[in-house]
Amino acid sequence: MKIFVINGPNLDMLGKREPEIYGSDTLESINGELAAYCASVGVEPEFFQSNSEGELIDFIHSAHGIADGIVLNAGAYTHYSIAIRDAIAAVELPCVEVHLSNVHKREEFRHKSVISAVCTGVICGFGKKSYKLAIDALIL
Amino acid sequence: MKIFVINGPNLDMLGKREPEIYGSDTLESINGELAAYCASVGVEPEFFQSNSEGELIDFIHSAHGIADGIVLNAGAYTHYSIAIRDAIAAVELPCVEVHLSNVHKREEFRHKSVISAVCTGVICGFGKKSYKLAIDALIL
Amino acid sequence: MKIFVINGPNLDMLGKREPEIYGSDTLESINGELAAYCASVGVEPEFFQSNSEGELIDFIHSAHGIADGIVLNAGAYTHYSIAIRDAIAAVELPCVEVHLSNVHKREEFRHKSVISAVCTGVICGFGKKSYKLAIDALIL
Amino acid sequence: MKIFVINGPNLDMLGKREPEIYGSDTLESINGELAAYCASVGVEPEFFQSNSEGELIDFIHSAHGIADGIVLNAGAYTHYSIAIRDAIAAVELPCVEVHLSNVHKREEFRHKSVISAVCTGVICGFGKKSYKLAIDALIL
Amino acid sequence: MKIFVINGPNLDMLGKREPEIYGSDTLESINGELAAYCASVGVEPEFFQSNSEGELIDFIHSAHGIADGIVLNAGAYTHYSIAIRDAIAAVELPCVEVHLSNVHKREEFRHKSVISAVCTGVICGFGKKSYKLAIDALIL
Amino acid sequence: MKIFVINGPNLDMLGKREPEIYGSDTLESINGELAAYCASVGVEPEFFQSNSEGELIDFIHSAHGIADGIVLNAGAYTHYSIAIRDAIAAVELPCVEVHLSNVHKREEFRHKSVISAVCTGVICGFGKKSYKLAIDALIL
Amino acid sequence: MKIFVINGPNLDMLGKREPEIYGSDTLESINGELAAYCASVGVEPEFFQSNSEGELIDFIHSAHGIADGIVLNAGAYTHYSIAIRDAIAAVELPCVEVHLSNVHKREEFRHKSVISAVCTGVICGFGKKSYKLAIDALIL
Amino acid sequence: MKIFVINGPNLDMLGKREPEIYGSDTLESINGELAAYCASVGVEPEFFQSNSEGELIDFIHSAHGIADGIVLNAGAYTHYSIAIRDAIAAVELPCVEVHLSNVHKREEFRHKSVISAVCTGVICGFGKKSYKLAIDALIL
Amino acid sequence: MKIFVINGPNLDMLGKREPEIYGSDTLESINGELAAYCASVGVEPEFFQSNSEGELIDFIHSAHGIADGIVLNAGAYTHYSIAIRDAIAAVELPCVEVHLSNVHKREEFRHKSVISAVCTGVICGFGKKSYKLAIDALIL
Amino acid sequence: MKIFVINGPNLDMLGKREPEIYGSDTLESINGELAAYCASVGVEPEFFQSNSEGELIDFIHSAHGIADGIVLNAGAYTHYSIAIRDAIAAVELPCVEVHLSNVHKREEFRHKSVISAVCTGVICGFGKKSYKLAIDALIL
Amino acid sequence: MKIFVINGPNLDMLGKREPEIYGSDTLESINGELAAYCASVGVEPEFFQSNSEGELIDFIHSAHGIADGIVLNAGAYTHYSIAIRDAIAAVELPCVEVHLSNVHKREEFRHKSVISAVCTGVICGFGKKSYKLAIDALIL
Amino acid sequence: MKIFVINGPNLDMLGKREPEIYGSDTLESINGELAAYCASVGVEPEFFQSNSEGELIDFIHSAHGIADGIVLNAGAYTHYSIAIRDAIAAVELPCVEVHLSNVHKREEFRHKSVISAVCTGVICGFGKKSYKLAIDALIL
Repeated sequence: MKIFVINGPNLDMLGKREPEIYGSDTLESINGELAAYCASVGVEPEFFQSNSEGELIDFIHSAHGIADGIVLNAGAYTHYSIAIRDAIAAVELPCVEVHLSNVHKREEFRHKSVISAVCTGVICGFGKKSYKLAIDALIL
Repeated sequence: MKIFVINGPNLDMLGKREPEIYGSDTLESINGELAAYCASVGVEPEFFQSNSEGELIDFIHSAHGIADGIVLNAGAYTHYSIAIRDAIAAVELPCVEVHLSNVHKREEFRHKSVISAVCTGVICGFGKKSYKLAIDALIL
Repeated sequence: MKIFVINGPNLDMLGKREPEIYGSDTLESINGELAAYCASVGVEPEFFQSNSEGELIDFIHSAHGIADGIVLNAGAYTHYSIAIRDAIAAVELPCVEVHLSNVHKREEFRHKSVISAVCTGVICGFGKKSYKLAIDALIL
Repeated sequence: MKIFVINGPNLDMLGKREPEIYGSDTLESINGELAAYCASVGVEPEFFQSNSEGELIDFIHSAHGIADGIVLNAGAYTHYSIAIRDAIAAVELPCVEVHLSNVHKREEFRHKSVISAVCTGVICGFGKKSYKLAIDALIL
Repeated sequence: MKIFVINGPNLDMLGKREPEIYGSDTLESINGELAAYCASVGVEPEFFQSNSEGELIDFIHSAHGIADGIVLNAGAYTHYSIAIRDAIAAVELPCVEVHLSNVHKREEFRHKSVISAVCTGVICGFGKKSYKLAIDALIL
Repeated sequence: MKIFVINGPNLDMLGKREPEIYGSDTLESINGELAAYCASVGVEPEFFQSNSEGELIDFIHSAHGIADGIVLNAGAYTHYSIAIRDAIAAVELPCVEVHLSNVHKREEFRHKSVISAVCTGVICGFGKKSYKLAIDALIL
Repeated sequence: MKIFVINGPNLDMLGKREPEIYGSDTLESINGELAAYCASVGVEPEFFQSNSEGELIDFIHSAHGIADGIVLNAGAYTHYSIAIRDAIAAVELPCVEVHLSNVHKREEFRHKSVISAVCTGVICGFGKKSYKLAIDALIL
Repeated sequence: MKIFVINGPNLDMLGKREPEIYGSDTLESINGELAAYCASVGVEPEFFQSNSEGELIDFIHSAHGIADGIVLNAGAYTHYSIAIRDAIAAVELPCVEVHLSNVHKREEFRHKSVISAVCTGVICGFGKKSYKLAIDALIL
Repeated sequence: MKIFVINGPNLDMLGKREPEIYGSDTLESINGELAAYCASVGVEPEFFQSNSEGELIDFIHSAHGIADGIVLNAGAYTHYSIAIRDAIAAVELPCVEVHLSNVHKREEFRHKSVISAVCTGVICGFGKKSYKLAIDALIL
Repeated sequence: MKIFVINGPNLDMLGKREPEIYGSDTLESINGELAAYCASVGVEPEFFQSNSEGELIDFIHSAHGIADGIVLNAGAYTHYSIAIRDAIAAVELPCVEVHLSNVHKREEFRHKSVISAVCTGVICGFGKKSYKLAIDALIL
Repeated sequence: MKIFVINGPNLDMLGKREPEIYGSDTLESINGELAAYCASVGVEPEFFQSNSEGELIDFIHSAHGIADGIVLNAGAYTHYSIAIRDAIAAVELPCVEVHLSNVHKREEFRHKSVISAVCTGVICGFGKKSYKLAIDALIL
Repeated sequence: MKIFVINGPNLDMLGKREPEIYGSDTLESINGELAAYCASVGVEPEFFQSNSEGELIDFIHSAHGIADGIVLNAGAYTHYSIAIRDAIAAVELPCVEVHLSNVHKREEFRHKSVISAVCTGVICGFGKKSYKLAIDALIL
């Protein structure tokens, strides 16, 4: 089973940025742990990060016919990228929307997601565990 | 480790109600499966369901000093019960907001949760798996 | 034919409360008259009143498999109880939303009903006649 | 007792238009049935239909001093014709707002009526029975 | 100097309708008094009233090349008839918006005029004097 | 192939009104050119213009069973006539919404169309060419 | 008959400020002309101008028991000074709200008046003639 | 003189919950102090607390004909319980709305009270002194 | 203990203005009674009234280092004077917001206070008793 | 004559994505047909597609001084890319906004276009014919 | 070159008020430093501070024909004083809007300025440096 | 001292685009002048321009640990790019938001900046001088 794990804008700054919100792990270490977990449950992950909306869309498209599911932390694009929303709808794969922090404890504008409605479900607020739970949600 | 698993209004109708949204399992069977899972991971669950906002608040209060965490599917009260929100804040326990369906695919008024901001995190859209993932979120 | 006639919060105060809006009949006398009318048209009514949202939901649930229809004056819950809305949807019975007064002549917040969309229809503004018309709407 | 039964825009298309919403009866057949019912309860109906806001206002005015009540299905004008609202207020007769469909199950913009506040009451959602119930509401 | 004095929907009911708001004069008597005043100041008035938005537009168009100004009480159409607004703009004549009552003391929806922005000015709240002041505004 | 070409309020003023927005052609000359074009592509047009919402609805109804499509410039009614919207939906014919000017460059209230959702498509901003493109859209 | 003619903020700049909107007359010349007109119709005017909300309120209060009416151009305070609104209500005198320009042709925020509802009526858009018409409105 | 002192949801958690907002007194100790004060000024208090909207309504109803006034801290129900609002209006007794904290310093949704308009007055922000001031407000 | 008792715009008209809302006492008599009460509880009051926003701000500033608390009825400025809000925040003294009437029973725009969030608490609806309760709130 | 035909995000998925909305043609086949049509009318098209907002802006800029017009289907960027809006305005070329589907039949958020106001006109709802009509709109 | 440096309400409290936002400098010391800077660049400043909206307007008016530019920190009036906005527009001088703090980091209601649109530009967030930069903006 | 000077979408069109708003300088000439100024005050600037949101984010990230401050004209992204906002917050450097034009004089949607709240301050409206003032704001 192949799962695309996609991280959006500024998640490459993890561990460097506002650690009181996101913790001190870097994206590399989080992906490393997640890769180990995937291996243990028979999942083949493919990791991708970009700050570019267009590259994220390209990569989501590339999942079509290859991946069995998507774990997507779209970062700030969550709140306005209808283009990413359409990309998810276009590939017609199970997709789990993930957030490290509980976005509902933060600024009002982070409470709205334009992509939730085309995802299978949403998991937010559990730090790096959110990704692991998303993998479980796809494979259970 | 003791976890309160609380279900709100109309969830006693599960299996009888709109199965295209909620599936055909009853709350009893879901709780039964979840109890088995809890046992396997060393969690002692306590199940509660009520259609009454007041009883749900009373039960949340009773978690204080007894439970280590709460899994809460507040049903329709999710969208307007500030009283339940205050109850969660009052007991100062980790609480996971859970929904069977992806509420963001449904009516606009179900997109807003008044309790998310006082919960640890949110898991929605994975059917009965949502509860299991919530247990994992609390114990991992 | 069995019809549940359900009255919500503060309707037990009828005849005592703001008679210029609701008239001077008590709920008992209204139910009495309605029972007589039901008898004359072959309907078996079951009356229920509660100020508790939870009890109203419980009673609506109890209609499942027993009643052929519901006449519901949800009082103030009309304007915010999504939980009652879900209860009506769950029992999948014809339900007529009823109001004694014409709510559209009153405060702005009474113009919005969260339950209309899951009812068969709405009858409001005809005082105690509203209930009788609702019975007719169900049996005609 | 004389009652004006007034139908607004597009109701002349009944039976030809979106039968899944309005049923397959034509306005003529509905009026025919209603005339028979009126006869049986001692009501003298006068039927009128127009697609023109101005003609509807003219006809409502003509009720002044002649009719004892009005049954009005203002169709789409319900949602914006303040001019019809003022016409109803001007003739100072009991007026029942009627809709075939439950407008609250339809598009958001159909949930708002600018005429309800000047009518005696509202009956909607019971198909052609709505008219009969409106007659009853006026004569009971 | 020729001035078109145009009255919109329900103003034919003046004197019959809500006298506490509009006074007990009929439109005929108001127009009569106004005609006398016009004569005294060298204005040739042409009076028109209709409940039909289309006829009002037709009549406004007819002012083009004939009238030197328009006095318009558009009644309820004031609040939503963009078509009448466009008609006023099209004829490119000075137009005074008039209201008998002070619309700002009435319901919220009467506070908004869609035609004010294409009129020369607005006079409201002085009963039948409003028309006379509008004539003066055009001829002074 | 028969196509109804319908123009709404104030379009009879074309060529006389705000030429910087609508150009200096009259409706007659535009219809004349369009008739010639229709002849060249085997379309039989029927032209209609009215300032009356009711007459426009009547004429749209008359297309039922006769016309193969409708080209509609509803003028200002575009922005609020739900009655015309319902008329279009009722006749169940392909209908192209047309505007001479690009309404999105004009006042905010002209950006909203209540009829677009029941039309096949929308063409706006190309002056009299808009009508020709609409014919093409129906026959291609 | 004594009438207070009150001008609010920035009207002392008349003739110096944006003449394309307000014309080139100074407030002094306008008041001078108006004084002459008042004399001719037996009105004793008292003129006042201030840029201070508090002084305007003080002066309005001083009308109590002395003046028979007020002509008020509250300038920008029109749009937010609830304190001036309360002052007008407190003195219980006929008050005419006046504007030189047609405020409805200007910025959106100038379309709303917080004082209209406590005035007898409104006259706007006729330049300095607006004041003269307001005097007439009070004395006719 | 008999006064009902009613506390709503989560106020039973006082002293256990967010002491930085509510102080460390329990509801019991606050009621105890208040009882002593009542005794000193000749007031007979009756205390009630519930987390249930329905029970609060029942208790408010029970004041009818027995109590001379009500002191009500409706907790979170303040912000949405139109049912409690109607209950207060129904018993037609002087009622003082009370809050421990200054709700206007807290989240936006706590700034709106649906019950203020049917109470005699509001006292908020003075901690447990708020109750004492409310008693004074009723007896002075 | 020194307390500044400050009254804003139009409160100098008390007793003259809308007595059905504010009672027939003048501000002088209310202040007189309050002075007597203050004397009885060891408070030295300083009274101030102005219709000018700027003078009210100046006086609030003057409390800095002199007064121990402020009782403020800001009248209509309550609803929009952010400048007064900032003045209260600047002097960092306990301040009680007071209103004679229950503002929540009046026009919608009076329901919003821009100063509540920087005051200690709010007391409204008890007529002249509101001031006395505010003194108590500061000294208890 | 040279025309740039630009397609935005997810249009590369045409034929793979939601065919019930967009039809089963791929972008390649649509462009192929359009190229043939362009050849027949003497237009030299240049095709471009990108999922990247930045690349779309770069390509629009490149039209400056080279192309005679632009046909732009900005996909989801239509609804929020003010940057693309500014790019269109910057190149000062005739630009036709195109959509395959009638966006007004879809989700509310697709009804708003931030680019319409800087385009010459809009054509939507005619499937691949929309592009051909847009070419005609530019060359006619 | 003569520049008016104008400070609005509560800025006289600088150094005494919320130093964590505004720093500990007094307005006198800020003006002193600024005067020195002005001298060094050949600018003759004139300083003014008032808490009164009316006095600020008077002073702005006085700049007409005397000053070459205005530096204005309107304090809280920034957010609602349309009267000050009109004063700035009236004097037709370059005016720089200045704020000590970055108002966009503060309460929502401080994000809106009603005066920006009539100023040359805005400088905010640089503490007392904001004034110096504003001088530079005017003289460069 | 090293400062990154970053320009967003369409600023590469400066001098070619709408010169009445932006002036006729190209970005190259503006950067050239700014480089000279920087040299004169001991600042080492690094210039960057991109139309791509992703590349702008990448470049902002690259400032981390290298630059001492950022001058950012985010162009149209200012109004919706929460991703750029997060990038600025992530690098934790002083950042000055800059605009050539006074955005508050332009369309409503340009009045809102989603990045202001994470910047040190804002400078807008002074043409190319805005950049120079921003450098000064960082180095003073």
